[in-house]
Amino acid sequence: MQINIGLIGFGTIGAGVVKILQKSASSIEEKTGVRLCLKRIADLDITTTRGVEVEPELLTTKAEEIIYADDIDVVIELIGGYEPARTIVLSAMRAGKSVVTANKALLSRYWEEIFQTAAESQVAFYAEASVGGGIPIISAITQGLVANEICEIYGIINGTCNYILTKMSDECLEFSEALKQAQTNGYAEADPAFDIEGIDTAHKLSILSSISFGGHVSLDDISIEGITKITKQDIDYAKELGFVIKLIGVAKRLSANEIEASVHPVMIPENHLLSSVNDVFNAVYLIGDFVGPMMFYGKGAGQLPTASAIVSDLVMLAHQGKGLINARASLTMEENMIKVRKTDSISSRYYLRITAEDRPCVLANIAGILGKYGISIASCIQKERGQFVPIIMLTHEAEEGNLRTAIAEIDGLPEIKDKTVCISLMVY
Amino acid sequence: MQINIGLIGFGTIGAGVVKILQKSASSIEEKTGVRLCLKRIADLDITTTRGVEVEPELLTTKAEEIIYADDIDVVIELIGGYEPARTIVLSAMRAGKSVVTANKALLSRYWEEIFQTAAESQVAFYAEASVGGGIPIISAITQGLVANEICEIYGIINGTCNYILTKMSDECLEFSEALKQAQTNGYAEADPAFDIEGIDTAHKLSILSSISFGGHVSLDDISIEGITKITKQDIDYAKELGFVIKLIGVAKRLSANEIEASVHPVMIPENHLLSSVNDVFNAVYLIGDFVGPMMFYGKGAGQLPTASAIVSDLVMLAHQGKGLINARASLTMEENMIKVRKTDSISSRYYLRITAEDRPCVLANIAGILGKYGISIASCIQKERGQFVPIIMLTHEAEEGNLRTAIAEIDGLPEIKDKTVCISLMVY
Repeated sequence: MQINIGLIGFGTIGAGVVKILQKSASSIEEKTGVRLCLKRIADLDITTTRGVEVEPELLTTKAEEIIYADDIDVVIELIGGYEPARTIVLSAMRAGKSVVTANKALLSRYWEEIFQTAAESQVAFYAEASVGGGIPIISAITQGLVANEICEIYGIINGTCNYILTKMSDECLEFSEALKQAQTNGYAEADPAFDIEGIDTAHKLSILSSISFGGHVSLDDISIEGITKITKQDIDYAKELGFVIKLIGVAKRLSANEIEASVHPVMIPENHLLSSVNDVFNAVYLIGDFVGPMMFYGKGAGQLPTASAIVSDLVMLAHQGKGLINARASLTMEENMIKVRKTDSISSRYYLRITAEDRPCVLANIAGILGKYGISIASCIQKERGQFVPIIMLTHEAEEGNLRTAIAEIDGLPEIKDKTVCISLMVY
Repeated sequence: MQINIGLIGFGTIGAGVVKILQKSASSIEEKTGVRLCLKRIADLDITTTRGVEVEPELLTTKAEEIIYADDIDVVIELIGGYEPARTIVLSAMRAGKSVVTANKALLSRYWEEIFQTAAESQVAFYAEASVGGGIPIISAITQGLVANEICEIYGIINGTCNYILTKMSDECLEFSEALKQAQTNGYAEADPAFDIEGIDTAHKLSILSSISFGGHVSLDDISIEGITKITKQDIDYAKELGFVIKLIGVAKRLSANEIEASVHPVMIPENHLLSSVNDVFNAVYLIGDFVGPMMFYGKGAGQLPTASAIVSDLVMLAHQGKGLINARASLTMEENMIKVRKTDSISSRYYLRITAEDRPCVLANIAGILGKYGISIASCIQKERGQFVPIIMLTHEAEEGNLRTAIAEIDGLPEIKDKTVCISLMVY
């Protein structure tokens, strides 16, 4: 069976797809019976070399020559961002082409429109590469774990943040130093906001939870906190207490039609497998009602891992047509019963770092406020001496809303210097 | 789309399949469009209760009433072992039924016959549950990573051994004590030989490597060593040196058509993710040429995880028909070009525990023999005093054949008391 492919967007990932097809199309055909045939590549810039040789007649600057071509079955969209990617994806589907993409921002925002258009146009839409790079996590959830209700998801799904936190921990760096290293090594953009403020993680969590819980969980449903407030001090204290700090996208089923979803730094017990996921690696840890806990680990970004996921989508599409991701997504259209609970009513244990003047009664005042809101202290470290000292507390389980109110009150005390840092603990 | 199912073998896993279908068939239909309809259950014993209620008219003692039934599309074989499982699987396929099984022993031994019969009979054969329980590792390799050549596989794929080694390490137990605990907790059979001698791991490695390398790797191709020789002492020394001992099934591509495959205890560096896979959990760590390293982790056994994999096969079969595992396996029929290299010519680093009389020149004699065979010592620990002392050595890379010869010679020295224990190091 031959699949004719048009590639729109000839950047790093696009060049990766071309590399894999050049090297492995024949072995893929041998293994699967599917002949992947690249017919055309569209990009505004068709003169820059991409580290891969292509016949000049494959190249065009006009996306329409792919979207409306009679000899193309599948369009791979690798432009990224919202426009013109959205228009191209929708037009291609309306023109009868199936679409494969790695575009998490697009899918997260235009979920309904994309899957509705795919269903109306009777084409397939695949997006394995949009979450976790080369890790086949979407097909694991929609296929391998199809018998399960997913109960909980914990994802380390942003390589930039994980690299920065790993460097801070391993080399005792401050956040700004680790960020600079990430930028030097090509793991962070010149403007890193999108990654370090948790937006990229939230896009991916939106896709993972929509697939897992059967309702579109949009970016607005997800409370988001990045890693910019994490200091070397927090990482050191975490270590002392037996924890590692990671940026995690968390989603949990609370009842049949209610979930919570959030992105924030989490203190993970150092004997939990997620605590060993380091550098730019990604991992998705999830709990299914029948399989129990599982973890999928691998490279979450990079040219060839991401291209590997795209090529697997092409083969899947050839074998399954509209696959299980399409069926699952259609469900989210018809019965979007999922409500996302506000984080205020969610309970967790917390790490607090309070920076206070070293004078009598400070601890009493803080403990008094916490007690007033029903928050009890599991352990406390106050070691250093100086004008201002960090007071580290681990709380027992507490409601986030109560905790926020208590912290606001604590931060209003005259003896408190900086805003209190608050990191939730992974309880499992 | 409706799939009519006949279940043959109503033991623990069979009852698990029934439980999942009773609880989740309607949500699976909603998610996938596939209605899984259990038509009949065959077992010699249809009177014992299995913790699940079934209508009595579903039950039969005659497998033929499933194999030759007109109203059944798929047979789930859960008898285990070679016969009558083999005859049932082959007859069912010849009668036009697709087959889903968890039977690793059967698949490992009768690989060619099974896939040949499936191809001739134009039916599908799925076996996700045969390796790694609930972990969707076979579909990950055949689908999600289809663009990749798999270069290396390291599997912790026997829960019994992993439980025993974890207990020995965490609770400082000797092998026999840990085995007894495993038996008490239902993680080891009364006759544990099959697990602790590495045979079960080898069956699963045979399947993983056949799928990954495109040639049938049989049990005879795999050199097998279990965990019975591992002592508390070895585990303690490993810890001191920064390693954890696990029973690993290893397969590596050495060239386009040559691989190695073996099952043996391996010392894994404690900063490697595999070293954190504990208790009865399984994990498969693999390296693909494009995706790089990946790990899949989860419950490798148990009623519901295993049944979860079987049910996912039913859905896959409905969506794909003869899926990618069938295509991949057919390849192994046509061009079984894979040669398995003898372990003698394989190189590794090694841990040696030599038990010698504490007298002059012992170390010199040992080092002399190692040197004669070109084996150089990276580090050495000799601490205790007594009539017989353990001498611990880590070697640099050495050929297994040379090492075996050297050890035989060392063990022949008059001052050596016990057989030398030799464990290879995971070098990655």
